[in-house]
Amino acid sequence: MKINQFAKQKLSYEQEIAELKAIKFINTEILQQTPTQAFYTLLQQSFPECHTTTAKNTKIAALLATPAQNAYDYLQTKQITVNAFYNIYFQLLGLKVGIDFDPEHPLALKSSINYPVFPNNILQTADILHGWYQLLITHTVHGQTFLDELASRGYFQKLIANKQISQPLFFNGKAQAVFDTTKLIHEVVYVESNLDSDHDGQLDLLKAEVIRPVETNTGLKVPVLYTASPYNQGTNDEIGQKLTHNVNQLLAPKTPCDNTVTQSAKANLVSDIQTRTIQSETTVAEETFGSNFTYSLNDYFLARGFAVVYAAGIGTKDSDGLRTCGDDQETMSTIAIIEWLNGTRTAFTNRTDNIAIKAWWCNQNIAMTGKSYLGTLAIAAATTGVTGLKTIIAEAGISSWYDYYREHGLVVAPGGFPGEDADVLAAETFSRQQQAGNYLTVKKTWQQQLQRIQKQQDRTSGDYNNFWDERNYRHNVAEIKADLILVHGLNDWNVKPKNAFKLWQALDSNNISKKLILHQGPHIYINNFRSLDFTDMMNLWLSNKLYGIANQAEQILPDVLIQDNTKPETWLKYTDWGNNANKKSTFFLAPNKLTPTSTSTKTVTFSDQLSPKIFKNYTKNFKQWREDLVATQSNNLDNNRLIFQSNPLSEPLIIDGRPIVKLRVASSQNVGLISIRLIDYGRDFRLQQLPTILETQAFDLGFHYQKETLKDYQLATEPTNSQLISFAHLNLQNREKLTKVQTITPEQFYDVKIPLQPTHYQIKTGHQLGLIVYATDMEMTIRANQNILYSLTLSNCSLTIPHL
Amino acid sequence: MKINQFAKQKLSYEQEIAELKAIKFINTEILQQTPTQAFYTLLQQSFPECHTTTAKNTKIAALLATPAQNAYDYLQTKQITVNAFYNIYFQLLGLKVGIDFDPEHPLALKSSINYPVFPNNILQTADILHGWYQLLITHTVHGQTFLDELASRGYFQKLIANKQISQPLFFNGKAQAVFDTTKLIHEVVYVESNLDSDHDGQLDLLKAEVIRPVETNTGLKVPVLYTASPYNQGTNDEIGQKLTHNVNQLLAPKTPCDNTVTQSAKANLVSDIQTRTIQSETTVAEETFGSNFTYSLNDYFLARGFAVVYAAGIGTKDSDGLRTCGDDQETMSTIAIIEWLNGTRTAFTNRTDNIAIKAWWCNQNIAMTGKSYLGTLAIAAATTGVTGLKTIIAEAGISSWYDYYREHGLVVAPGGFPGEDADVLAAETFSRQQQAGNYLTVKKTWQQQLQRIQKQQDRTSGDYNNFWDERNYRHNVAEIKADLILVHGLNDWNVKPKNAFKLWQALDSNNISKKLILHQGPHIYINNFRSLDFTDMMNLWLSNKLYGIANQAEQILPDVLIQDNTKPETWLKYTDWGNNANKKSTFFLAPNKLTPTSTSTKTVTFSDQLSPKIFKNYTKNFKQWREDLVATQSNNLDNNRLIFQSNPLSEPLIIDGRPIVKLRVASSQNVGLISIRLIDYGRDFRLQQLPTILETQAFDLGFHYQKETLKDYQLATEPTNSQLISFAHLNLQNREKLTKVQTITPEQFYDVKIPLQPTHYQIKTGHQLGLIVYATDMEMTIRANQNILYSLTLSNCSLTIPHL
Repeated sequence: MKINQFAKQKLSYEQEIAELKAIKFINTEILQQTPTQAFYTLLQQSFPECHTTTAKNTKIAALLATPAQNAYDYLQTKQITVNAFYNIYFQLLGLKVGIDFDPEHPLALKSSINYPVFPNNILQTADILHGWYQLLITHTVHGQTFLDELASRGYFQKLIANKQISQPLFFNGKAQAVFDTTKLIHEVVYVESNLDSDHDGQLDLLKAEVIRPVETNTGLKVPVLYTASPYNQGTNDEIGQKLTHNVNQLLAPKTPCDNTVTQSAKANLVSDIQTRTIQSETTVAEETFGSNFTYSLNDYFLARGFAVVYAAGIGTKDSDGLRTCGDDQETMSTIAIIEWLNGTRTAFTNRTDNIAIKAWWCNQNIAMTGKSYLGTLAIAAATTGVTGLKTIIAEAGISSWYDYYREHGLVVAPGGFPGEDADVLAAETFSRQQQAGNYLTVKKTWQQQLQRIQKQQDRTSGDYNNFWDERNYRHNVAEIKADLILVHGLNDWNVKPKNAFKLWQALDSNNISKKLILHQGPHIYINNFRSLDFTDMMNLWLSNKLYGIANQAEQILPDVLIQDNTKPETWLKYTDWGNNANKKSTFFLAPNKLTPTSTSTKTVTFSDQLSPKIFKNYTKNFKQWREDLVATQSNNLDNNRLIFQSNPLSEPLIIDGRPIVKLRVASSQNVGLISIRLIDYGRDFRLQQLPTILETQAFDLGFHYQKETLKDYQLATEPTNSQLISFAHLNLQNREKLTKVQTITPEQFYDVKIPLQPTHYQIKTGHQLGLIVYATDMEMTIRANQNILYSLTLSNCSLTIPHL
Repeated sequence: MKINQFAKQKLSYEQEIAELKAIKFINTEILQQTPTQAFYTLLQQSFPECHTTTAKNTKIAALLATPAQNAYDYLQTKQITVNAFYNIYFQLLGLKVGIDFDPEHPLALKSSINYPVFPNNILQTADILHGWYQLLITHTVHGQTFLDELASRGYFQKLIANKQISQPLFFNGKAQAVFDTTKLIHEVVYVESNLDSDHDGQLDLLKAEVIRPVETNTGLKVPVLYTASPYNQGTNDEIGQKLTHNVNQLLAPKTPCDNTVTQSAKANLVSDIQTRTIQSETTVAEETFGSNFTYSLNDYFLARGFAVVYAAGIGTKDSDGLRTCGDDQETMSTIAIIEWLNGTRTAFTNRTDNIAIKAWWCNQNIAMTGKSYLGTLAIAAATTGVTGLKTIIAEAGISSWYDYYREHGLVVAPGGFPGEDADVLAAETFSRQQQAGNYLTVKKTWQQQLQRIQKQQDRTSGDYNNFWDERNYRHNVAEIKADLILVHGLNDWNVKPKNAFKLWQALDSNNISKKLILHQGPHIYINNFRSLDFTDMMNLWLSNKLYGIANQAEQILPDVLIQDNTKPETWLKYTDWGNNANKKSTFFLAPNKLTPTSTSTKTVTFSDQLSPKIFKNYTKNFKQWREDLVATQSNNLDNNRLIFQSNPLSEPLIIDGRPIVKLRVASSQNVGLISIRLIDYGRDFRLQQLPTILETQAFDLGFHYQKETLKDYQLATEPTNSQLISFAHLNLQNREKLTKVQTITPEQFYDVKIPLQPTHYQIKTGHQLGLIVYATDMEMTIRANQNILYSLTLSNCSLTIPHL
């Protein structure tokens, strides 16, 4: 087991002692105690669930100090040895004697866990205190720090009741669980936006759900984690299902065009409708709410002195407006909540009486959190430069909607959702429709809006047009003032890695602080992995950004942290993504081969057509299609794709950035699309596709609060033959540049350059790099099953890999 | 969508009104109001999250009353029509207008939900009140009753604060969520058992974790749901893994023996060691605990006026003793907790000071809950007849450990755990070992104990010997005084259905009340299914059994409830299991055929041996083995099993009970084993193997308390060719009866009669009944890969099916 911790702050001994005193773990007297006495005191503190010395002693006696002596008996001796100390230390972290370590030689520990090293075999009081400080900030095997575990066992409860500690309380630079989650206040406000997106002549009111510590009622000002989630007032799944487009469509020839964008992207002007006249002001909300959908990272911070706000935005249940899927109005509706939190926008206690209510409990420091659409809206909000938004933690967010629903002039679905498009998502999240009485008033406007989206998204061409250009947040990267944490899965084929990569690259010219975490998962959260202290990292960051704690968060957290794809539980620090690669290697295409030098002058071909039966089967069974596509054994796709494989690698190749494929290609028709997959071939044990559940109800986010499942990536128990590294799709009519459409003359060869999805991937020695060239992608492109023959002139085909 | 509710109590109108008053949903005045006024009052009550009339009115206006009018505007009219009433009713249940129902014709509802029928189209106040009562007890689409949903949105909060309602509060016979879960008391006691299972000269102390409502501190006496879980103090997974037996073993010839049981099963005598001398008494515990593993059904009841107790038993962390895996000492340690709750046994506040603490807050009515080992210990406890144990809800429990680890003279593993045995489970649950300091004192005794189990469980013979006879709780069925609910999965190949079936059959002669629920799952919990009000059923039952509420629970709950295997969301009432079948059909075996009359006189053969490579592959890939075994197409198992298929059925066949296979069989060696699978052949859409997650965080078990995931079984999106119905395994040496061992003469034919696992299964018209006869079961039996040839004389082979 490897537990990697990146959020530990290095402090001097004096600082450690001061912090131990601040959390009342020790008092001054302990510094004068003998090592044995001090050790006993610290052990007693480590069983907060026991309220008597007797009960604590029993727990201490249950620990092993030496191979033949329990900790209580050992304390009757005069000296504390390094081995005894670590035997106990490791047991307190949940490591098992005889399984995880041998009590004769505890430091020959099999697991990878940080622990202090002492100069002498016999410990002094200072050693023990330093060791205990380190113990408190170290993760147990259950997925949280030992201090968090003590908190969940009641450590802070009496101290809170007796007001012996401050609230908030920071330890090792991170906010601690000292807030009473049983008394959290839940309240609803309606924020008045500057939009009238449903054209009813009134500014849209937006529902916001606030959860704040009760301590704010007595003067504490707290920061806010704000999660904008269009999903969390319900979704119209059946309507979305019905609107989902049939992807079995012919690839249509497009009219040539020099620039598919005909006007520069520009914010929709805010409404000039007058704001409502405030009738009165109050500090008390009149609406509360039961359990809503919550993100457990937010829940964790609720126990630590942060408030949390959820809002679903225009067109959702209890709010005004219409869904727009990614445009500027949606962004404005997203930041309206921040403006209210920051004191520059009005909210009301209900939708009709104009009774204003301020976020009087907020310290005006706001962060945004969440994954997928939630992360997307965090990115959108950040690109406005809205005041008060100090940082965002954007997980698997979209940075340009074109990169979500389109690619290189083609309609390309997010993996797993063929036929989904902006209209489908707009309709799915239009939860206002679920309030059928309210929907009556807006039905017609909504249907027009939906038709407008359907037309403008233009599934016929797949072009990057005005609609998509307006939905490219990267245009406004220069406006970003919030510091930024991006988290993305390198195997996320839903929101593809390009979204994070291009945003990250674009941030280069921006002076903000930024961090990037790339994991090996698909479209998942990673805040409950055993091998990574993600939550602590966010705590260090947010304690710094929102509470102003001088904890060196920016220096301590790695700029770029990437989960290794070859070994479980391994996270590697980098300084950048895509610019780490100081080398480039080019492979040339030859029949079935990727070769270091250009050797082939052959022309090779493949067809895009399948028998109707096989085609139909693949449209229903993506797994089979994927397996056949990549398999080098003969199968139904033999004539429908070309596979090029390198020789087994003589040394590992660590790809970093965007591989580029150059092809000289001809289509037998006046249309054409090319799909590419980059493959790691080699029978090997790889990480599983999804993290394994290690322990359900593994730990508590506070004290008798919410329980969390512990997960991590494990190696599969069976070897696999290959793994997908990256891919791309291109409309040959968009061969020169994205915004230019050119004709295709059948059988004429064109040079195309196709950048693949960015990655960071190690191909191991002995494995082969593989490139698959094909056309229809059953899972993502439209599926014409047209009779098109594609030809490649191999002498002009290559693959260039940026690598370390 | 079908929502089946079996826990609704039918009450008179007067009773309904009285209950609505008791929960302060209405007052007397409403009876005099016009229908419109009354309707408005009830609607206002249905938005407890809103604290002002304005806010409530907005919510009402968001509902649709007629296709063109919202509910608020509709209330300005004079009459309430049935359609308007149901439009609103269904919306409040979470059904979607235009999707789930058409507001022009709400009663043409597509979903299956109970609702009252009114005689007239214009509703009177009494109709509306009756309707609203029914609404409150009806499940919303999110998986709980509307009243539960209102509770989770704060309905009871003000009433509790103002002491306007009683605690506990029963509505429609079921306890309601009126307890403050934020103030639950968590405390630990150490119960003194009457055992000295670790032979240290002291009676074993057993840790119990108590969670009780704070209201008990002010005089309320509450019942207890007690869950005995050997897992919940931790498990020794690595040790268990290491002890797991190699199942690639030769099938050994056994010495003939007339009775493998040499002494009658008898309780281990309780220890004659003196109980500890009580030094003092207290009502205050001195140890608490953080979050432990909890069962969400228990959590639900914590919000409703029940306490919950978890205990792990002898040999677990913080307790004394040794694990025994199923023997009488384990049972005694299980009921020791009940005896303490019931006031007849002492518990202490810590392990050394002999300070006694009573369960002074308990009303001495105790139920046991939990699945698997937890359900097993509930069954074990019930068979002692211990006073205070009023009922058990045993889910997927073992009723005889032989039926868990053995079958018909063979070592047969629980599905998915080949090589597991009683010793492995004992060691895995011996969490005391994790307290390495404490373990020092007991290490030697434990190792002896483990060796004793290893010897006595006797993996060599697989015989039903004294060890297993002592672990057969069914011997003591006559002692059971607790009323009983058994829950079992018909596809549970871990704790196989025989455990529930044989217990259920044995209970026939016992005068207790009993209920049985059979679902289509494997080894899972079912308390969060959308299609079944399981939790309400348990609430009705426990309100009756533990709080003495006269709610006709015994009459209301179906005696036997069985989930249909052909249609999703369908639960059918029966009066019995295995005795419903008034018909028996016999099929005779002919080459590849099951025929209605005996037609074949052939002898057919199969081999038990595979090539080492194929054998090895199957030992690692059960899924492949299972698929090949059942496939009628040629594959690697062609010579290793016989498949017999009936003609396609001309009408459905509903099997109920235990199919019986009779064979005349010979082995080519002096050993032999026969495995049987009964198969439903027919390409069809079947229920998926596991329930689908319909909604995460779907509902709250109380008010801002624990959130629950909503699940249900859905039809698979792809058809399958077959499904396993039942199976059996038999050692040919145990052919006459289980406890008798006979020799096998090679090539001699013997008549054997093999009862299969009991089932309840509908084979649809057009499907074929299939029987597979083979020897080694890769997943369950030992795997000798011996060169044995088996022969069947088909004229003496048959399959008898009990069916409806």
